[in-house]
Order: sequence, then C-alpha cells, then structure tokens
Amino acid sequence: MTGGAVARAGELAALARAVRPGALSTDPGDRARVAVDRSGHRQEGLPLAVVRAGAVDDVVATVRWAAAHRVPVVPRGAGTGLAGGATAGAGSVVLDLGGMDRILAIHPGDGIAEVEPGVITAELDRAAREVGLRYTPDPASAALSTVGGNIATNAGGLHCVKYGVTRDAVLALDLVLADGTLLRTGRRTVKGVAGYDLTSLVTGSEGTLAVVVGATLRLHPLPAATGTAAAYFASPEEAAAACAAVLDAGLRPSVLEFLDARTLGAIHRAGGEVPATGETFVLARTDGFAAAAEIEAVHAVLRRTATRAEYTGDPAAADRLLAVRRAALPAVERLGRVLIEDIAVPRSRLAEAAGALTALADRTGVPVFTFAHAGEGNIHPLVLAGGQDPAAVRETVDEVFRLALRLGGTITGEHGVGTLKRAWLDAELGPAARSLHVRIKQALDPLGILNPGKAI
Amino acid sequence: MTGGAVARAGELAALARAVRPGALSTDPGDRARVAVDRSGHRQEGLPLAVVRAGAVDDVVATVRWAAAHRVPVVPRGAGTGLAGGATAGAGSVVLDLGGMDRILAIHPGDGIAEVEPGVITAELDRAAREVGLRYTPDPASAALSTVGGNIATNAGGLHCVKYGVTRDAVLALDLVLADGTLLRTGRRTVKGVAGYDLTSLVTGSEGTLAVVVGATLRLHPLPAATGTAAAYFASPEEAAAACAAVLDAGLRPSVLEFLDARTLGAIHRAGGEVPATGETFVLARTDGFAAAAEIEAVHAVLRRTATRAEYTGDPAAADRLLAVRRAALPAVERLGRVLIEDIAVPRSRLAEAAGALTALADRTGVPVFTFAHAGEGNIHPLVLAGGQDPAAVRETVDEVFRLALRLGGTITGEHGVGTLKRAWLDAELGPAARSLHVRIKQALDPLGILNPGKAI
Ligand SMILES: Cc1cc2nc3c(=O)[nH]c(=O)nc-3n(C[C@H](O)[C@H](O)[C@H](O)COP(=O)(O)OP(=O)(O)OC[C@H]3O[C@@H](n4cnc5c(N)ncnc54)[C@H](O)[C@@H]3O)c2cc1C
Ligand SMILES: Cc1cc2nc3c(=O)[nH]c(=O)nc-3n(C[C@H](O)[C@H](O)[C@H](O)COP(=O)(O)OP(=O)(O)OC[C@H]3O[C@@H](n4cnc5c(N)ncnc54)[C@H](O)[C@@H]3O)c2cc1C
Repeated sequence: MTGGAVARAGELAALARAVRPGALSTDPGDRARVAVDRSGHRQEGLPLAVVRAGAVDDVVATVRWAAAHRVPVVPRGAGTGLAGGATAGAGSVVLDLGGMDRILAIHPGDGIAEVEPGVITAELDRAAREVGLRYTPDPASAALSTVGGNIATNAGGLHCVKYGVTRDAVLALDLVLADGTLLRTGRRTVKGVAGYDLTSLVTGSEGTLAVVVGATLRLHPLPAATGTAAAYFASPEEAAAACAAVLDAGLRPSVLEFLDARTLGAIHRAGGEVPATGETFVLARTDGFAAAAEIEAVHAVLRRTATRAEYTGDPAAADRLLAVRRAALPAVERLGRVLIEDIAVPRSRLAEAAGALTALADRTGVPVFTFAHAGEGNIHPLVLAGGQDPAAVRETVDEVFRLALRLGGTITGEHGVGTLKRAWLDAELGPAARSLHVRIKQALDPLGILNPGKAI
Repeated sequence: MTGGAVARAGELAALARAVRPGALSTDPGDRARVAVDRSGHRQEGLPLAVVRAGAVDDVVATVRWAAAHRVPVVPRGAGTGLAGGATAGAGSVVLDLGGMDRILAIHPGDGIAEVEPGVITAELDRAAREVGLRYTPDPASAALSTVGGNIATNAGGLHCVKYGVTRDAVLALDLVLADGTLLRTGRRTVKGVAGYDLTSLVTGSEGTLAVVVGATLRLHPLPAATGTAAAYFASPEEAAAACAAVLDAGLRPSVLEFLDARTLGAIHRAGGEVPATGETFVLARTDGFAAAAEIEAVHAVLRRTATRAEYTGDPAAADRLLAVRRAALPAVERLGRVLIEDIAVPRSRLAEAAGALTALADRTGVPVFTFAHAGEGNIHPLVLAGGQDPAAVRETVDEVFRLALRLGGTITGEHGVGTLKRAWLDAELGPAARSLHVRIKQALDPLGILNPGKAI
C-alpha cells in the first residue's frame, strides 16, 4: 500500500463513520456495479467507494467529507442514464440515492406530491393513481429510473407533447449544495416569482450543481377517458406532415409518435404485429374530458394522407397499437449493440431530418433506426454499432449531431450531455454560453467536486 | 458644476457618441418619466440619462460604457411594473427597450415567434392571430406591457391555469450580459437539455442578471371554440371549493377567476352589471376542441354549490361576463390609491386565504379587495391606501405577506420582488438560498451594474 492509498483508507474510514452504519461499501462488486450506467460507457478505474444514502444526513456527510478531501462525488439514481452521466472512475465516490425511496406525502387538494429522490418514477405514478391523480413525466425507463435521476436529466417521455417535461412537473427541490448546505428552492404553488428560478437551474444539471434530496412535484388528474389512433404513411415526409397537421388543427394529443420504416421492419422481424411494407407509422393518443371526440378528429386529419388509419376507445385495442411503439427499442436492440441518440429539431424539420437519417444510413452503410416524439421534433436515431465498422459508426453518430445543429436543433432533447456528448456541446452552445456555464458551476461548486467532467 | 459632475458630463457625452444619434437623452422630462413605474414608488433623485435603444448595438454600447464607469443600468420596458422593478434613481442610466419593437418572424410550422424585447404583448398576440395562432401569456396589462418586461418579471395572467406563465412560452433568449457580451440561450425546439437552463434563470430575474434583447417564443393554435361560465356563491369558502372541484374533475379551464364580495361591491358601485348581494363570483372559460362540452361540465360542477350559475358559447354574452372580471381593478382604483399585491398560496388554501383577508380588513379597518386566479391560488389583495391611516396600511400589507408565507405560499405570484418586496424576500427564501442568489448574481454581474437594489 502506498502512502497515498493509506491516507485514502483512513479518509474513507472517517466517511464510513460519518454516515449510517453499513451505508459505505468498498466492495469491488458494488463499486463495479455503480461505475457504469446504461450507456455502457466506462471510465478509467473504479470509484473508491459507494455510499448508499438512507437519509439526507448521509448526503450532507458525504458531500462535506468530499469537500474536505477534494474527492469527486457522483450522484446516482438507478443508473439507467444513456449519456454516461452517472459513470464513476478512479478516485471518486458514488452517492447512491436509490435507497431514499419514500413517497413522503400526496396532497390531492393541491395536486402535489413530496418525494425522496430515489422513488421509482412508475411507483410515484402508481401511488398518485390511487387517489385519482397521475405523475405525467414518463420516460420509457419509468419502471426503473428514479425521480431524482429524472430531475437531474430533465427527462422527457411520451406524454411531453401535452404535459411537458420533468421540469414542468417540478415545483420545489430540496438540495444539498457542494459545501453540504441544505437548501429548498421553489415553492408549493404553481406560480411564484420571488427570487431566481433555482429549481429550473438545477433541473437538468446532471448532478453537477447540487444533489437532489427531495422534490415537490405536480400531479395531474387521471383522465376521464383516452383515445388511440394509428396510421401508416407511404413516406416519412407524409407522416411528419400529418403529425404537424394534427397540431396545427389545434388538437392536443397526449402522445404523438413517429416510427420509420426501418424500425417497423425490425419490429416485424422480432414478431411484432406490423406489416413490412416500407411504410412509416404514426401513433396518437388523446386523453381527458373530450378524448373520444378528439381522437376522432385526430384520425380524420391523419386519414387524409395515410395509406390506412384506425382509431379506438377500447383499452385492449389501444394496447395492441401502443405495443408497436413499445416494441421499437427492444426490437432494434435484438440486432446488436445500438447507440441511442436523441436529437431534437424544430417541429417543421422532422420530415427533413427523417429523410436525412435514411440517406445517412445508406451512405455510411451503418443502419439507423429512427423513431420520434413527433410533437416536439424529438428524434431517437438508433445507430447500430454491433458488428459495424467503428469508424463508420463514429462518422454516422457525428453526422447525426451535425444534422441536429444544421436544422436549428439540439444534440440532446432529453437524455442529457453526460460524458458522451461533451465533445459536441461547444458546437451547440458557443463560447459565450460556455464561459457562463463555467462561471455558474464555479458559483455553486467552487471546488468542482460534484460530478466533474460531466454535462458541461 | 462640481468636478465629479463635469467628469460625468464627459462620460455621458462618450455614451451619446457610442449609441445611435439621438438615442441618449438627458432631458429632465424624459428622465423623470423613466424614473418610476406603475407602482408609484420613487427613488432618490433622477437618473443621469435615458438611452432609447433602437438596436442590439445600442444595448451593448450602453452596458459596456456602464461597466467601464461603474454606472448602474436600469433596463426598462413599458414601465407597467407593480413592484418598483424599473424605478431609477440618481446616478443610474435607464436603458429603454421600448423602441426595439419589431416582430422579426412568425413561423407557423414550428409554432414560434422571434421578437425584439419592446414588442407590446398584445401586438404579438394580434400578429399571431393573423396566421391562426396566439401568444398565450396575457397579463391584464397586455395592451401596454412589453414582452421583454414580461420575460424579466415572468409575468402571469388569466390563461396561466391552462397555458402556463411567460416562462412556459420562452424557448430562447438573446441576452446582453453585464460585460456587453451577446449570448443566445435555449433553442428553437420545445425540448432540449444541452447545458444549464439559462433561459429560465434569466426569466423572472427582473433585469438583474442580463438585458433581454430578443426572444424566441412559443405560440399556440387559436382555439376552435370557447365557452364561458359564471356563478355566484354565498361564501368565499364555497366559491373556492367549487374552483377546486372543477380542477379535481379533470377539467382544464383556460380561465378560472375568483372575485370576493367586496370587489363585486366596488364593481356594482362603479356601475358594473353585478348585484350587490354580498356573494362571491367565479368566472370560468374553456377553449379548444371541446370547449362547448367542457364548459357545460364546468357549469355542472359550479352549479352544485352556487346560488346561481350560467354558461354560454355566445361571444357577446361571454363578453358581458368577462366584463365583470375586467372591471375589478378599475372599479377599486376609483376608490383611491391602492396597493396591488399578488401573493400565491397552495390551491387548497384559497378559501382560507380569502377568509383571512376579509378578517384582516375588518381588524385593521383598511379595506382589502380580493380577486384571484383561482386555478393557481394566485391572489391579488388590493389594499386601499388612499385616505387610510398609513400605519394601518403598512400593518395590513405586512399581514398579507405573513399570511402568504404562513399558508405555505409566496409573497409574489407574478409581479416580482422589485424594490417593494425586498424586505420580505429573506423571510421566504431563507439565508442559504439568499447566499446562493448573491453568488449567482456575482457570477453574471460581478460589478453589480445591472439593476442594483432590485429583485434580490
Ligand atoms: C430503456 C430505456 C428507455 C429510456 N427512455 C427514456 C425516455 O423516454 N426519456 C428520457 O428522458 N430518458 C430515457 N432514458 C434515459 C434515462 O432513463 C433517464 O435519463 C433517467 O432520467 C435517468 O434516471 P436514473 O435514476 O437512472 O439516473 P442515473 O442514470 O443514475 O443518473 C442520471 C444523471 O443524473 C444524476 N443524478 C441522479 N440522481 C441524482 C440526484 N438525486 N441528484 C443529483 N443528480 C442525480 C447522475 O449523476 C447522472 O448525471 C431511457 C433509458 C433506458 C435504459
Ligand atoms: C393594469 C395593470 C395590470 C397588470 N396585470 C398583470 C397581470 O395580470 N400579470 C402580471 O404578471 N403582471 C401584471 N401587471 C404588472 C406588469 O404589467 C408586468 O410586470 C409586466 O410584465 C411589466 O412589463 P413592462 O414592459 O411594463 O416592464 P417594466 O415595468 O418596464 O419592467 C419590469 C421589470 O423588468 C425589467 N425589464 C424590462 N424590460 C427588460 C429587458 N428587456 N431586459 C431585462 N430586464 C427588463 C425592469 O428592469 C423591471 O425590473 C399589471 C400592471 C398593470 C399596470
């Protein structure tokens, strides 16, 4: 053991004493488990330890210790992130918030919930449903991801077109700052303009500005009814135009999804109930008071240019249509390792983006499967990496980012920058914004101990 | 002339040369006009000068000059602010953005507008309507206020219950920072998580973090139809409970307003078409695809506990009902000088707050007129100051703020902190948040030249 390692061991023993008994683990298996997230990206070496926080005190103690010893702290929810935001390398300590998983209160009268950060997204929704409410942010990972991780990434999902992203659901946050200070931002009211919007600043900051140890979240009433429609189109352009026409008609679908022909093909080959006709698929849902009449109107718009279209208010029939969308990611992942990108472009450029992605795949020879939250122009190009030429894969991914920026969009609509997209961030932000980010980071985390090397 | 004043005159001459010819005025009338806002609050002395910016260059030149000479800069829109945010005193320069009033583009396909900051709020809405869209943030001052001022205060309005506040409409901002750097935040897409949410940070910062010189804003489709309902209730408690019941039923009214008996009395005395029966009034509107069916459902909920209720889809009849709400502020202002407060409380505490405000007025003898955006618990207690004992007025206002905080709410739901609410800000934020605000202010404006003494 070197002198440095001995000192480190002593420091870790101090941390172990500062947190709940048993909260700290230096077990290599534990450390390996928390070193990666779902992106598959890996840093050099393993973290020194993982603290499984059971309460706010553990978080405060860990951050104070980290500040005193200048040790990087990597906050971690469920590790379902796709951008390498929660990856941890040599010399860092992982702060696992998954164990702080209590729903503290649901106040139906105010339509709000108070939760710890480790609550699983779908669990909060389930609890809300028991009192006639729901939690609308719904990343496809909702059954696994934590609310804290969703807040730290400002996660999106299928319902954003009507209900907004995670930030739109966050009213107040309990934070542990980089010096261990505990702070509440925001309020229990929907409106409020006293002070700067620290809640939004921390939401989406990927653990680099503060640790989220509690949240007050907005709930919505369970919809009285839902409606579901699906349509096939001869070209991605026609499908994208039909999605735009739905929104232009003043309709407010709760889901508006776009799946390209290649993705449909993958679903077909995986045994999904879709024909392999080279068509593009659009799925729409409505919910709320007028769901039935509204889905009929959505269907009427889609039908105008679709090769065929249908709609239903029957839950079982709706589930069959939804199953197509749900099958997309697993069907593509069967084909080998995929890189899940998530650019966003202005709504009107969706058709152009879909066309360009098809052409790109043809040019580089690397298959790109495209599906999109059409209402927001948020596109998931899935780049097949397994079995492909790495240089061609890299070129394909780079071109995906270039395309997003060329069309006036963003390199990441919902997954975050993490480790993997940092190289592209400057191209999007520019030098002035970049320097302002650094100044804000310094104002909140002068020692640079909170998730360094991520997000900015 | 003292030596200091001579030096100042030389500096001002340099500024006059740095901006468009004629943009700078030192005329005492001009300076007096821009020294105050609609709060009526006044600082010591008059500003040194006003720069009527015609383009971004004027803003950059003014801020650079101010930084070089350590002169406070007070950004100003239309001066309709109610919190003393745009007031300017001796030694400062006012940066009037009202002349940068071009709508640069409206992109119907993306549902966005690009504007200069001086565009009048209602003008943007009017222009959007020409292409079948609308701009939803609608402060009651929309015919006078600027979009830049709305962004700087994160203005609310009647439609927030369905469409959110100004921040929800802001996708991207063009900013001039305190050192004259020009910066774009955000993006043209609805979703996007690259970098920190600087757009939200600056929105609502009341000119203390940056000058807004351009904005990319979200537009919504014009609703296919609207519906309007009105109801009278025997008590404020019943009225508030009925508003909550509407929301709990999963209905999404676009307007949900509450007017107390004292306010109705003022409207009655001003000749408005309301009876003086000591009842509480609720106004609801629906819009969009299912407006007709939805207003019927809203009416059905209100009717359950109302003494009487009505609804209509006829625009002329709707206008008569809306006129009651519109008459509230002018009717009260006829009675003398009023202090327009705007606390917000959790939705479920609205009845309690309304009751407490009535009791408060009875106790201090200072009339308090209460109306509220009921959907968000955002209450406007209008405290009559004219002709009242100043100490009793002060005690009444203080108790309004105390009440807001006691009920878990905020001292300002939409008007901002400005100068007038700074004394109460610490009570809401607490010391840790306070210190973080100062650090953020220092990171963006190290010299403290942007609207010092306001907001934080
Ligand atoms: C199958 C699948 C589908 C997905 N679908 C979607 C989707 O539809 N939409 C979408 O947006 N994302 C999606 N994702 C990505 C991922 O689930 C989200 O980014 C999610 O928000 C991450 O939550 P987590 O709890 O797993 O966080 P982690 O992966 O553990 O962490 C993510 C980031 O947040 C930080 N963090 C975590 N918790 C905290 C905290 N309490 N305080 C401060 N920082 C913290 C971490 O440091 C890291 O930077 C999907 C992922 C998978 C595997
Ligand atoms: C009759 C009446 C009704 C009202 N109703 C409402 C209402 O329903 N909802 C509501 O929210 N408010 C309301 N207000 C308050 C006021 O209209 C809003 O605060 C409005 O947003 C102010 O806009 P303005 O252009 O007049 O800004 P100003 O009063 O000129 O300035 C307000 C603040 O913004 C800053 N500022 C202005 N422009 C810029 C810029 N370009 N860059 C940076 N900082 C800037 C100023 O420094 C100041 O701090 C009402 C006011 C009146 C008189």
